[in-house]
Amino acid sequence: MKALFIGGIKSGKSLHAEAFALKHSKLPPVYLATTEFIDEEMKERIDLHKIQRSENFLTLEEPMNLLEAIRPLKTLVLLECTSMWINNMLHHGFKDKDIKEHLEKLLCLPQDIVFVLNDVGSGIIPDNALAREYVDISGKSAQLLGKNCDRVFHCIAGICTKIK
Amino acid sequence: MKALFIGGIKSGKSLHAEAFALKHSKLPPVYLATTEFIDEEMKERIDLHKIQRSENFLTLEEPMNLLEAIRPLKTLVLLECTSMWINNMLHHGFKDKDIKEHLEKLLCLPQDIVFVLNDVGSGIIPDNALAREYVDISGKSAQLLGKNCDRVFHCIAGICTKIK
Amino acid sequence: MKALFIGGIKSGKSLHAEAFALKHSKLPPVYLATTEFIDEEMKERIDLHKIQRSENFLTLEEPMNLLEAIRPLKTLVLLECTSMWINNMLHHGFKDKDIKEHLEKLLCLPQDIVFVLNDVGSGIIPDNALAREYVDISGKSAQLLGKNCDRVFHCIAGICTKIK
Repeated sequence: MKALFIGGIKSGKSLHAEAFALKHSKLPPVYLATTEFIDEEMKERIDLHKIQRSENFLTLEEPMNLLEAIRPLKTLVLLECTSMWINNMLHHGFKDKDIKEHLEKLLCLPQDIVFVLNDVGSGIIPDNALAREYVDISGKSAQLLGKNCDRVFHCIAGICTKIK
Repeated sequence: MKALFIGGIKSGKSLHAEAFALKHSKLPPVYLATTEFIDEEMKERIDLHKIQRSENFLTLEEPMNLLEAIRPLKTLVLLECTSMWINNMLHHGFKDKDIKEHLEKLLCLPQDIVFVLNDVGSGIIPDNALAREYVDISGKSAQLLGKNCDRVFHCIAGICTKIK
Repeated sequence: MKALFIGGIKSGKSLHAEAFALKHSKLPPVYLATTEFIDEEMKERIDLHKIQRSENFLTLEEPMNLLEAIRPLKTLVLLECTSMWINNMLHHGFKDKDIKEHLEKLLCLPQDIVFVLNDVGSGIIPDNALAREYVDISGKSAQLLGKNCDRVFHCIAGICTKIK
């Protein structure tokens, strides 16, 4: 089973994804944290997330090679978050195509995976080419996940609507 | 009864919120205008809104202290709009926590309140820290309202979808 | 019959609109391409779109006068995309009012028309006045189309939800 939670910033997608992960996992699920670049602001966000998810998850950190991180696991994986992972991949010189291939392989793994992704494409088209490229890759990744996940949820104002 | 209308810029949320307010109020509802900072562009927007809502509302203006403004009222209140109020609060040095507490108190009032809020979190994450803070506070406020309102509506292209 | 597909960048709206157009047209539908300003990046996007839509459409190009382009046609028209057309109109000095009137006339044509429109209003409100004006006009156009189209679809993560 694969699931996708997509929504804007602070739309409540993480909380819903965590509740979903706990509900659909017999063993304690793995919280796969993808954050690599940490400044003070980011650290505060992460600490807040850690408190929020309490003691119910096993936490694993892997900024890039999700495939190798997930392959040996025997339980549901909450990938938090796919957007940060895309960021990391682009920062390290990986391309659109690499991201697509990596996601396709993840989708073929037998593990249950819950993907969390920021919706970044519903505002004005950004001025700078790099941001535009990011929005494109994010949107294409969302489409790939949306197509292949068994369930897709759209979050806004903390309300989570099943759209697939 | 509390209701939330959330949507992007010019998504039709105001018109739907006004129709909803008129439908759910026995007495003429109060239109609580929160606008404080007025430039020419803003003035035009406000005048347009005034024409749109015709003669069916009693208009009250209060940029900050919504609690005291609403407390004595005997009828449904349309809060237009919550986003501008958040703006005003931040501009006057109030913090995340103050906004949260004020909203929590509003949600405990016996009056029917219809909240209108801009969805600002579904575009690219803004470059500057202040905009990012605003997006965060807006999203967290949306979650608080979404959780506590009896009905939540998402507007896009003038179409209003009940999501709670 | 008129239909609207609205969604963010790379939300899958084009693919869904194309499938919808093919399904609802007895004769091969017309793909009405509105793109006028072409740089390298834009060209790549267009070429990609061309490949995607394969051989099933008759392609017609018209950046401005959609009314005259569509009037003589005997088949369903897929307008790809309305956002680019709004861009073109503004660039050539047309105003909000002209765009509204042109759209109103399109909506009165007997032809089946499938409109594709970017949702650009759900991010942070842009700093510069021109972008803000564009977001406003886009939103008002979306409302006009949403109100008058028989079917409206919202796309996100490649998932297309009927909202009207």
